[in-house]
Amino acid sequence: MIQAGALYEGRYLLGTSIARPCIAKGLIDCAIAEGADAIAHGATGKGNDQVRFELSMAALAPHLKCIAPWRNAAFRKEFPGRAEMIAYAEAHQIPVKASMKKPYSMDRNLLHISFEAGMLEDPWYDATTPADRDMYVLSTSPEEAPDKAEYVEILFEKGNAIGLRCDRLAAIVTELGDVQATGERDGYTLFAPYGIMRVLNFLGGAHGVGRIDIVENRFVGMKSRGVYETPGGTILLAAHRDLEALTMDRESMAIRDSLIPKYAQLVYNGFWFAPEREALQALVTQTQQTVSGEVRVKLYKGNIMNAGRRSPFSLYSEAVATMEGGQEEAYNQDDATGFIALNALRLKASARQKKP
Amino acid sequence: MIQAGALYEGRYLLGTSIARPCIAKGLIDCAIAEGADAIAHGATGKGNDQVRFELSMAALAPHLKCIAPWRNAAFRKEFPGRAEMIAYAEAHQIPVKASMKKPYSMDRNLLHISFEAGMLEDPWYDATTPADRDMYVLSTSPEEAPDKAEYVEILFEKGNAIGLRCDRLAAIVTELGDVQATGERDGYTLFAPYGIMRVLNFLGGAHGVGRIDIVENRFVGMKSRGVYETPGGTILLAAHRDLEALTMDRESMAIRDSLIPKYAQLVYNGFWFAPEREALQALVTQTQQTVSGEVRVKLYKGNIMNAGRRSPFSLYSEAVATMEGGQEEAYNQDDATGFIALNALRLKASARQKKP
Amino acid sequence: MIQAGALYEGRYLLGTSIARPCIAKGLIDCAIAEGADAIAHGATGKGNDQVRFELSMAALAPHLKCIAPWRNAAFRKEFPGRAEMIAYAEAHQIPVKASMKKPYSMDRNLLHISFEAGMLEDPWYDATTPADRDMYVLSTSPEEAPDKAEYVEILFEKGNAIGLRCDRLAAIVTELGDVQATGERDGYTLFAPYGIMRVLNFLGGAHGVGRIDIVENRFVGMKSRGVYETPGGTILLAAHRDLEALTMDRESMAIRDSLIPKYAQLVYNGFWFAPEREALQALVTQTQQTVSGEVRVKLYKGNIMNAGRRSPFSLYSEAVATMEGGQEEAYNQDDATGFIALNALRLKASARQKKP
Amino acid sequence: MIQAGALYEGRYLLGTSIARPCIAKGLIDCAIAEGADAIAHGATGKGNDQVRFELSMAALAPHLKCIAPWRNAAFRKEFPGRAEMIAYAEAHQIPVKASMKKPYSMDRNLLHISFEAGMLEDPWYDATTPADRDMYVLSTSPEEAPDKAEYVEILFEKGNAIGLRCDRLAAIVTELGDVQATGERDGYTLFAPYGIMRVLNFLGGAHGVGRIDIVENRFVGMKSRGVYETPGGTILLAAHRDLEALTMDRESMAIRDSLIPKYAQLVYNGFWFAPEREALQALVTQTQQTVSGEVRVKLYKGNIMNAGRRSPFSLYSEAVATMEGGQEEAYNQDDATGFIALNALRLKASARQKKP
Repeated sequence: MIQAGALYEGRYLLGTSIARPCIAKGLIDCAIAEGADAIAHGATGKGNDQVRFELSMAALAPHLKCIAPWRNAAFRKEFPGRAEMIAYAEAHQIPVKASMKKPYSMDRNLLHISFEAGMLEDPWYDATTPADRDMYVLSTSPEEAPDKAEYVEILFEKGNAIGLRCDRLAAIVTELGDVQATGERDGYTLFAPYGIMRVLNFLGGAHGVGRIDIVENRFVGMKSRGVYETPGGTILLAAHRDLEALTMDRESMAIRDSLIPKYAQLVYNGFWFAPEREALQALVTQTQQTVSGEVRVKLYKGNIMNAGRRSPFSLYSEAVATMEGGQEEAYNQDDATGFIALNALRLKASARQKKP
Repeated sequence: MIQAGALYEGRYLLGTSIARPCIAKGLIDCAIAEGADAIAHGATGKGNDQVRFELSMAALAPHLKCIAPWRNAAFRKEFPGRAEMIAYAEAHQIPVKASMKKPYSMDRNLLHISFEAGMLEDPWYDATTPADRDMYVLSTSPEEAPDKAEYVEILFEKGNAIGLRCDRLAAIVTELGDVQATGERDGYTLFAPYGIMRVLNFLGGAHGVGRIDIVENRFVGMKSRGVYETPGGTILLAAHRDLEALTMDRESMAIRDSLIPKYAQLVYNGFWFAPEREALQALVTQTQQTVSGEVRVKLYKGNIMNAGRRSPFSLYSEAVATMEGGQEEAYNQDDATGFIALNALRLKASARQKKP
Repeated sequence: MIQAGALYEGRYLLGTSIARPCIAKGLIDCAIAEGADAIAHGATGKGNDQVRFELSMAALAPHLKCIAPWRNAAFRKEFPGRAEMIAYAEAHQIPVKASMKKPYSMDRNLLHISFEAGMLEDPWYDATTPADRDMYVLSTSPEEAPDKAEYVEILFEKGNAIGLRCDRLAAIVTELGDVQATGERDGYTLFAPYGIMRVLNFLGGAHGVGRIDIVENRFVGMKSRGVYETPGGTILLAAHRDLEALTMDRESMAIRDSLIPKYAQLVYNGFWFAPEREALQALVTQTQQTVSGEVRVKLYKGNIMNAGRRSPFSLYSEAVATMEGGQEEAYNQDDATGFIALNALRLKASARQKKP
Repeated sequence: MIQAGALYEGRYLLGTSIARPCIAKGLIDCAIAEGADAIAHGATGKGNDQVRFELSMAALAPHLKCIAPWRNAAFRKEFPGRAEMIAYAEAHQIPVKASMKKPYSMDRNLLHISFEAGMLEDPWYDATTPADRDMYVLSTSPEEAPDKAEYVEILFEKGNAIGLRCDRLAAIVTELGDVQATGERDGYTLFAPYGIMRVLNFLGGAHGVGRIDIVENRFVGMKSRGVYETPGGTILLAAHRDLEALTMDRESMAIRDSLIPKYAQLVYNGFWFAPEREALQALVTQTQQTVSGEVRVKLYKGNIMNAGRRSPFSLYSEAVATMEGGQEEAYNQDDATGFIALNALRLKASARQKKP
């Protein structure tokens, strides 16, 4: 998904989009192991998650039935909304994170946490003030982040982050507790994807990176407003794009970029396991074969600053690009004359075309 | 261009792209007034600017000849590169901003300033350190920006920023000297586009907003590395996108977004006055009819934080989106059952399809 | 729609797609005039037409309710399918064109007629044999069409056909009875769109033009098989494309062409009155400003042969294109050297790139 | 290329586009075997072929130089155009097919033959009359084709035609002389791609299939007019598309279709061996995994009539599609109500949006 540069409506593709299909796959495996003929989920009838669960089920296990209580009128009569559900949970001492005091809802997974509903239902509401300091979970605010920048270097192989380098990496791994290095290469500590995400979430969160506040377009047809924290994913996206700039052919990138909105829309709408997502993925994967190398980013109070990139597969040539003399072998400036003349030919024809 | 959401290869579309066609247009008007039959420019044969100048000329004045000394072998023999040219300028006391001490080249216009060449020709070079503090012109670094955030509210009409609101606006206008308000509306001070850009450049620059460091793909076929400052443009792009999220139809946005890479590539490559750019513009302009309203952003040490948006043309409906009960008239959750079932139909058919 | 080159899944865009929104608009006008608060339609719950009716209603009159008996379980219990409905109609002497003898269904409008269901439900069934001669309504079969070709010349203005020229035009107009010329220009007889369609349907039908047999993808999620006759529309599409080739800029055409699948899908799926269709239309309309001129086609036993095109807005230049000598002013072949060299530059970089 | 549905500007992608890269590859292999350091070609400086040759060389053998005499001013002074070249060839008894009597130029390969220049330089010239009967090489005209239709059935595997069935197949193979069957399957005679093309060219040519007359847009910036015969390729394209309609998922097809103009443009412009063509190919190849099965077409005087398609990978379900009753298990018409309601939701919001 990082490889696809998955921006949805201009922002980083939200984590739930990909978490739901994964959960559906896990549930289906369980259901088949148990001999079940149906799966139930608690997603409301208004959101995207129901769609993501159920389209994933359709694609992976079309014989399983799906039960969605929130779309059952009798159930809804008893629980018209979140308020009643929270009250019921409190009355029956069922622990839930939402409360009438914190009326926004939260959804957390490895990639992000989202906040919706409650006071966020007013799009003019400013969620960056100290009043909402307690809402945020994965990140400190830029204003409370450390005054000192921190560098992290990321090693990529075929579009995937596989290693990290940063001064206090050992200490972070110890603090996280559930992450283990899988090896060393060229001075980088290698991790499985889980480890990469955990460490980058830690670093990004510490520096206030990855918070967004957006109005988005649910697949079921309505606009909604949400606030998200995606610290590690935001770093990955920026670093990956920076390495692509060095190693990916211009026109391959132009084609891939033109498909980002479609790819992101498919993922957002729940079509992760659909044939068209797999067709797009084949193109994206093809473009990533040379996206290997190193990226250095500097984290500081909400900023991810590009601070260098290099790769054995670099397409950048100092001999060609230099503004100093003596490289006519690599690039003959006279060629630009013909290049421009023929690109101009149809423009001149249009300019001379009789206008209606 | 802001309306088109003009990101080129994932980053904000550089200002030179649009400055060059404007300059070409100005030169052509002069040439015609003077009765000249040719225009000369000093762009090198390696860059994008020569293309932007000359394609603009082809589209606007196909009868004019173009003279480009840097693409003349005799001229180049005398001046093989920037080093010799700087030496010549120094020897003849011609004032130029590039020097052997500051070997990077600069290009400045209302929208941005760019830095290339020199030590930047190594893509692994970190340009964010205090060592290069003096290179930057339009912005302070995030690390040296004020510790206190500042809000600015922007009024848009049909996709264009027309007014600003911020605590110290009067003082900024006084300090800038060359900007005048054109009126008042709803508490906003109205400005011509020049004023909007000047004030936002001031504010963005003060807060370290809009610096980027990228490897890009020149139209003439090479990769190059550049550092840019675009303080006001970066604020405009973020604010405009935020208002679109509230006021633009989902599918119109999806189509527009799929065309951003093409639009941006055309502008970057110099096809501003080309018929295909005008065709795309017709679509973009159509999508902007309802992009009117207010956006509040918070500037802080390199961050542009979305902090609220509202519009009389809002497509957001709290009644539809709410997670509280009692709004079945606006949205009947039962509808999601059929919606998902028919979206799933072809996925089930694919799942059941015999696989090769 | 012709201007958009509206091919859906490789075939000419079917007429019902555009007829349904037109009908919906007419019904809404009636409903509003009558003070009605709902509209009913007889489309089944399986097809595209229900969607086209109801999305048009949503876009034009969101306050009106829609009643669709075929999606009412009680109604369907009484009439499970077409067979029962035909039987009912026969029993109550209601005249319908479908019958148990002709079990396929027909839908006719100015642009086309469609056939579905019945024996056509087997996609391997060959519908081109004499056995189905009686099914076809608007066209003779290519095999039974006249042995002599017939020319027709079409006059276009900004992408719209406005005039016709053909040897027996006066006789055709007389035979049609309901068509009147609106003027003369440059030897062409001018007609309103209705007249253009009627005459071209007559000519195309006579020469066996415009029959197709396809499997298509309904918006509700299923594949279906249909046979269509679109005689006049098929001529228009071929002639219009031919004139565009002469008068439309290459890159404008490339962008428009890349949007044809989306435009056609929107129209097919019922989004004629949707904002995204209007945004695309703005682009298409912009590209049509110079699509004025004449096209000559030759009709013969199912063939539409291009037989000449000319226009005052032609972008074709014999001086530039000629393979004869003496035109170096218009096109200098040496320019191709630089043009190719710079287009090759990134390919050489890729070729030299270390491969993983 | 057939898999990509390669239509360029609405017409079947011309054969030279793919023949040139193949020739370049062959020449490079020879050059490397011979230890040559350059390759020469005789393409003019005005056409597409020089670009296709040289971009292929850049991508495959960036170290080889290219010599193009037609772009050498000294050479051109001696031979300003085709007329002088033909005269020289006649004077020196060099056999060439172009002559002053047949001033059009021809280019033939396995996929097609093209005609350009001469009287064809007038786009209004009608090339379908008996006067030009002798120009055509690969096909009879529709008007002179047999009065009796002929069926051919084509067996596809993963998007490639691999077998043929037709009444007189054995006789055709004998007549062609250079084609051999490679096996039998399910009543089909299997052939290598060369055999498929040869047989379909024979059949298509006999029935007047695959002639086109177009104005096209050369990559070097000019419009030109050409007449082409592509009998076998036109059959393949029609048959392949028909099988896709039965076996390919709707949304995969929509994405692939949206990329056809780009794919075709790349091939036309000479970027066959470019990384972006390979990226697109990965997507196309992924969509072809289930495009296996049989297509029956009927050839008659220029027509290719679809006359049935079937496949073990069919996504068509008669149970779902039928208009007869009793299949509510497969498709519940009530689902359409919710499906339409949620698709209508944003249209209603737009309809109610305050308009500027």
